[in-house]
Amino acid sequence: MIGRIDHVGIAVKNLEEAIRVWEGLGLKVEEIEEVPDQKVRTAVIHVGESRIELLEGTSEDSPISKFIAKRGEGIHHIALGVDNIEEHLRKLKEAGYRLIDEKPRVGAGGAKIAFVHPKSVTGVLLELCEREE
Amino acid sequence: MIGRIDHVGIAVKNLEEAIRVWEGLGLKVEEIEEVPDQKVRTAVIHVGESRIELLEGTSEDSPISKFIAKRGEGIHHIALGVDNIEEHLRKLKEAGYRLIDEKPRVGAGGAKIAFVHPKSVTGVLLELCEREE
Repeated sequence: MIGRIDHVGIAVKNLEEAIRVWEGLGLKVEEIEEVPDQKVRTAVIHVGESRIELLEGTSEDSPISKFIAKRGEGIHHIALGVDNIEEHLRKLKEAGYRLIDEKPRVGAGGAKIAFVHPKSVTGVLLELCEREE
Repeated sequence: MIGRIDHVGIAVKNLEEAIRVWEGLGLKVEEIEEVPDQKVRTAVIHVGESRIELLEGTSEDSPISKFIAKRGEGIHHIALGVDNIEEHLRKLKEAGYRLIDEKPRVGAGGAKIAFVHPKSVTGVLLELCEREE
């Protein structure tokens, strides 16, 4: 089951500057985390049951740095919170969706995550995300 | 106060095709609405306290059609749910944010909405949205 928008990921050039901008809107960054697997530093903003994740690449070959080089700063992906990610991935694969990750890997905050290719999802880089709460 | 992610707006070429794709992910479109002011047809998916809005331009000069012509299908904007949109806009203007709408207008579902320019928000087209519930 898909229960909520888990988060929206936003590619930013400079994390400290982005934090100033988003806190100026009336939001509060609650943690800053480094995810070496994805070569990003992320600032997490809680909004209701969801999060906004500001993402800065930590090297030029980070997916975030490449995205910014091609398209500029902006919304990078959307993540849906699911309850059984393996089952979801199996169904999507059967239905012909193009998976970037056929098996979940570990993302920010220890969540199990997997990406579905934008070509399968109307141009949207879609993440599935399962958290233990 | 910002209480939640109200919705994420996704620019799509063909609404019926997009509905098939998003319903195939395990979601359900609950209403389809036309918003003449913004020259879009929108299919609304409820996910927890938020929505995903699939947006198809109804004419070539629709902002959605222009977005797709330039960047292809994909995430178009994110909307944050606020409780007093006029007050919010006043504060943002004072703080130097570039507003697309200085006064709210009426969006899908009768909500009061206003957009903040991506140049002020790390490349993100940001909507503020106040609903009567």
